[in-house]
Amino acid sequence: MAYQAGVVGGSGYTGAELLRLLSGHPDIDVVSVTGASNAGASVGSLYPSLGVAYPGLEYVPFDAAAIGELDLAFLALPHGESQRIAPELVDAVPHLVDLGADFRLPAPAYEQWYGTGHTAPELIDRFAFGLPELYRDSITQRAHAASPGCYPTAASLALAPLLAAGLVEPTGIIVDAMSGVSGAGRTLKHTSHFAEVDESVSAYGVLTHRHTAEMELALSHVSGQPAQVLFTPHLVPMVRGIHATCHARPAVDGLSTASLLATYREFYAGEPFVAVVDDPPPTKAATGGNGALLTVRFDERTGSVLAIGVIDNLVKGASGQAIQNANLLLGLPETAGLNAIGMWP
Amino acid sequence: MAYQAGVVGGSGYTGAELLRLLSGHPDIDVVSVTGASNAGASVGSLYPSLGVAYPGLEYVPFDAAAIGELDLAFLALPHGESQRIAPELVDAVPHLVDLGADFRLPAPAYEQWYGTGHTAPELIDRFAFGLPELYRDSITQRAHAASPGCYPTAASLALAPLLAAGLVEPTGIIVDAMSGVSGAGRTLKHTSHFAEVDESVSAYGVLTHRHTAEMELALSHVSGQPAQVLFTPHLVPMVRGIHATCHARPAVDGLSTASLLATYREFYAGEPFVAVVDDPPPTKAATGGNGALLTVRFDERTGSVLAIGVIDNLVKGASGQAIQNANLLLGLPETAGLNAIGMWP
Amino acid sequence: MAYQAGVVGGSGYTGAELLRLLSGHPDIDVVSVTGASNAGASVGSLYPSLGVAYPGLEYVPFDAAAIGELDLAFLALPHGESQRIAPELVDAVPHLVDLGADFRLPAPAYEQWYGTGHTAPELIDRFAFGLPELYRDSITQRAHAASPGCYPTAASLALAPLLAAGLVEPTGIIVDAMSGVSGAGRTLKHTSHFAEVDESVSAYGVLTHRHTAEMELALSHVSGQPAQVLFTPHLVPMVRGIHATCHARPAVDGLSTASLLATYREFYAGEPFVAVVDDPPPTKAATGGNGALLTVRFDERTGSVLAIGVIDNLVKGASGQAIQNANLLLGLPETAGLNAIGMWP
Amino acid sequence: MAYQAGVVGGSGYTGAELLRLLSGHPDIDVVSVTGASNAGASVGSLYPSLGVAYPGLEYVPFDAAAIGELDLAFLALPHGESQRIAPELVDAVPHLVDLGADFRLPAPAYEQWYGTGHTAPELIDRFAFGLPELYRDSITQRAHAASPGCYPTAASLALAPLLAAGLVEPTGIIVDAMSGVSGAGRTLKHTSHFAEVDESVSAYGVLTHRHTAEMELALSHVSGQPAQVLFTPHLVPMVRGIHATCHARPAVDGLSTASLLATYREFYAGEPFVAVVDDPPPTKAATGGNGALLTVRFDERTGSVLAIGVIDNLVKGASGQAIQNANLLLGLPETAGLNAIGMWP
Repeated sequence: MAYQAGVVGGSGYTGAELLRLLSGHPDIDVVSVTGASNAGASVGSLYPSLGVAYPGLEYVPFDAAAIGELDLAFLALPHGESQRIAPELVDAVPHLVDLGADFRLPAPAYEQWYGTGHTAPELIDRFAFGLPELYRDSITQRAHAASPGCYPTAASLALAPLLAAGLVEPTGIIVDAMSGVSGAGRTLKHTSHFAEVDESVSAYGVLTHRHTAEMELALSHVSGQPAQVLFTPHLVPMVRGIHATCHARPAVDGLSTASLLATYREFYAGEPFVAVVDDPPPTKAATGGNGALLTVRFDERTGSVLAIGVIDNLVKGASGQAIQNANLLLGLPETAGLNAIGMWP
Repeated sequence: MAYQAGVVGGSGYTGAELLRLLSGHPDIDVVSVTGASNAGASVGSLYPSLGVAYPGLEYVPFDAAAIGELDLAFLALPHGESQRIAPELVDAVPHLVDLGADFRLPAPAYEQWYGTGHTAPELIDRFAFGLPELYRDSITQRAHAASPGCYPTAASLALAPLLAAGLVEPTGIIVDAMSGVSGAGRTLKHTSHFAEVDESVSAYGVLTHRHTAEMELALSHVSGQPAQVLFTPHLVPMVRGIHATCHARPAVDGLSTASLLATYREFYAGEPFVAVVDDPPPTKAATGGNGALLTVRFDERTGSVLAIGVIDNLVKGASGQAIQNANLLLGLPETAGLNAIGMWP
Repeated sequence: MAYQAGVVGGSGYTGAELLRLLSGHPDIDVVSVTGASNAGASVGSLYPSLGVAYPGLEYVPFDAAAIGELDLAFLALPHGESQRIAPELVDAVPHLVDLGADFRLPAPAYEQWYGTGHTAPELIDRFAFGLPELYRDSITQRAHAASPGCYPTAASLALAPLLAAGLVEPTGIIVDAMSGVSGAGRTLKHTSHFAEVDESVSAYGVLTHRHTAEMELALSHVSGQPAQVLFTPHLVPMVRGIHATCHARPAVDGLSTASLLATYREFYAGEPFVAVVDDPPPTKAATGGNGALLTVRFDERTGSVLAIGVIDNLVKGASGQAIQNANLLLGLPETAGLNAIGMWP
Repeated sequence: MAYQAGVVGGSGYTGAELLRLLSGHPDIDVVSVTGASNAGASVGSLYPSLGVAYPGLEYVPFDAAAIGELDLAFLALPHGESQRIAPELVDAVPHLVDLGADFRLPAPAYEQWYGTGHTAPELIDRFAFGLPELYRDSITQRAHAASPGCYPTAASLALAPLLAAGLVEPTGIIVDAMSGVSGAGRTLKHTSHFAEVDESVSAYGVLTHRHTAEMELALSHVSGQPAQVLFTPHLVPMVRGIHATCHARPAVDGLSTASLLATYREFYAGEPFVAVVDDPPPTKAATGGNGALLTVRFDERTGSVLAIGVIDNLVKGASGQAIQNANLLLGLPETAGLNAIGMWP
């Protein structure tokens, strides 16, 4: 019998993407979806594409008791809201997968980057950092997981083999990344307004984007040393996709592109969702699927290392990875429900 | 055991989309894919997204004998090529599904609209017109099917209930339709060149587009009278999607939007891939899935009927419908391998 | 000495486009721009591109007395607001050019389509319908002009020669038109949200779009008989551009595409902003310029007439045409400040 | 009387953009435009937007004698072709402005990055490096100019104030830049094919892009020391625009964002086409105009400097800058014909 799951905060894009992906999951059934301001509306009224798969499903107000009876809940809420409801849920629901930022960082880092105190710091450690390729053991040993952000997923996967092997310095790392506009969510704002962002590229969150902290966390984890990253995100006129272009300084002599590619292939051997490729991967190669495509270069001329990672921000960068975490928490095959390949063109 | 299938002409977009969709089909395995100019290349080299699902698959030259040993072959060739190879295949392969135009029309209509004689006219009748919602019996009674074009699929589904019930005149029909650029295929041309077609809309094939003949064929079939359509396609700057806006003159009195919507819902009751909706459907609702979304209006003010249909041109308009036909030919559930819902956003 | 002009409502897209175009006008200087909710902000803070040309210009609150001292005012306000301020301005300002809908229609038509009474019906006749190619005499005989909407401009120019010559019936006209998203303005809404509308086409305002009334007004004017139009607008994923595909039934025998093109060329001979072209024009041909490109066809097969018109919705469809009207009202050369040609690619 | 100019190679995008911009130039008339494969075609047949301004102009085959009688010629040719025709033109035509790469680099750098010998190395020094903000004196002292590439223009302007003042190290510079697809020209290729590049971002030319050499040339020029740059270009789904995100290591203590912005404003004081802005500029702010918008940051946390520059690749990155160079060579006001501001939205 399938596990009964709820989606708390199902009216945003990551919630809708959970519903899309879970409609094909063999072992997880969505039985409840909450949406504060959309309570009473059918999911099909917000997302016509979902109406077919969930003909009777309507958004309901959040009710901790009802969620508490499920096997599993995904929290797809605006940042700050998970920590408000988590105290009621962490013991009631066997498994929580939080897609927000509330349980990704240790309390001090959270407070530094979010500029506000955490209201449930004692619960943070009950959530594994849900980047399975780098934290799989931690995830399987905990009840709950906090899926990382889209940018940290792409950049951390792209840089991890270098830091794990001590091939580059953990400081002085530069990440210039580009994201599709869906990453900014369904909330209306001028920086998501078609006529403003179509046919335009702009940097934003310069020096201060909060995903920096998650990158530094994950890269310190694999490195064993404190990592430091200067991260600059850019908004590009497409719906989905993250492209992370990452620069690091060699810590050893004798690097070559060939040896780095070999290191990457060994590091990710057997990973179902990571492909190390020879040519720079386009984000389109990942659209709609849970895969990350990576490549790496050593530039002899300037003596620096360049790594590239691409993902679909809503799948591997959010809802797909959340399901991958759920599979691990439930003891299911890690790829269950995630076999669909990307859509090209 | 799964049926062994080949894709003849797998390097274009409809071929790639067949591979994408069939990677999740429970009863059909792709064992061979041909691609004349790309022979020797891996499918992943043309379509990075496909490399994961088909790690060892390479394009091979077409070989009728090899294809003849399969249970099923999809022909995804440029118009004119299927009729050249069909004579070698129609008796050797149990089931052919042709995605091209060669076996959709009777020979005289073919010659009228394509301006050239058909080289295998005696084989045309062995292919059913592969629009299952309107020709399901014909498909199950034949060995082979010719899937219709993307525009005729959208427009015929949008108009069929009106003509089947005799509610509108079969002549004087106007179809103004819009297509994403993938409909023009992978072949390089200025009308598919990004800088030329992005941020632009243009009509093309005005008065002469060959898909007119398929619309008139299908609508005459449901009407029982000769239908006549003025079809004007437009290229719009998106990758996927067809939007057909269709106008017809009432043949009876007393029409209303409510009664027309009811007629549509009854006509398509039980159809797994057709949704009749109240609001004008956006093409995005169909992206990536095999669904068609339809709505209809009666305009009291001008006394005319307006019907709208949207599909994904590469799925319901091509490769998804081809698989739906294959399922019917093989006696499989019609929805096998086609359950994935559309991707929004 | 240049005329001193104000832009009332300069924070929306038509206001910004007025500022862009007027920055190069030899005889009109913008000395004041109002913007209710943006008062105090510099125009460059909303529109970085405008900051260079208007380094010190800030939005100010509307002040009828201040506007009353100018030679000319453009009203680029949300529908309904012009009629509230017009009583204070019509006698104080020598020339008003209204870009909204308030003074385009006779009061009864306004009330029918807008569903509300007009608050200054006695002033409507003091505004010419500002479509210079069809109403030039009326414009030069009045003090004020009301520029028509983007869709009516494109469709009326595309159909006018047919109706003026009595070649088609004035009823049964069908206009299927497509617009870029900037036509919906700068106000935030989900139907202008990038992730919702990119890669999608949808019809909207079906049967009820208010621009229908302006098309019927202009076409009745050239026809001398009451014209009736079924107008269906579609939103397409581009910033700028209108494509109007128009269908009409012949009223005479013996039409041909060649004769219709000749009729169009004669009708628009000498018009500086209308080009009659042989091939279907792409909207990109008009981007950024004040031109309208038209073509026409007679379909022998179905016996119907098809006309196509394209414009830039923000230029010929709004701010460029408003300046064209201002030039006429002021007795300047009609093309003053409007010589820039379209931008391709 | 206006100067008589020719455009050699006017059928590509930079040629078309020269025609668009020069149609409004008060002192330069285009009297001849060559286009090898398009000889005999009207410019309006390739670029409908140009037909209005150049009703009779047709592409003609290149004829050195005819060009030799002009006052000025723009060479907008594929790389490698200018050096073949320059020997016939450098003494015959008073002023050449080359938009290609042939005369930008010293011969050794040309051979290193282009992998082939230069066929007219003795002529290279007769062309100034046409980046007026950094090489104005050199341009006014020579007869001819070679306009730099789009990426080098954006990146060099963004980094120059830092290197001129010795605030950053000239080595270890990283430039991650993004370009619209028009930068790849009108030649058909899959990396400009709509369905392949829309909704996708990808890096290309990794480690080896030839524009690196021009950046190093210009930055060494302002620095007085050899500069070294690792440049990675990315293709993003828009028509126009360059966004250069540039990283450099401080060479001095005590930097701050405020002091760097002040340095930039002083460095570019009086420059008509450079705006130093506080917020990260979107590329849309430059669309259609000849401006460059720049900003700069010092990141206290990681101790590094980040500079951003945006331009329109076809205007300041190509044809607009070529006209700016022509104005300098002819002794005209540097802004002649270049006053049009950007188009937003």
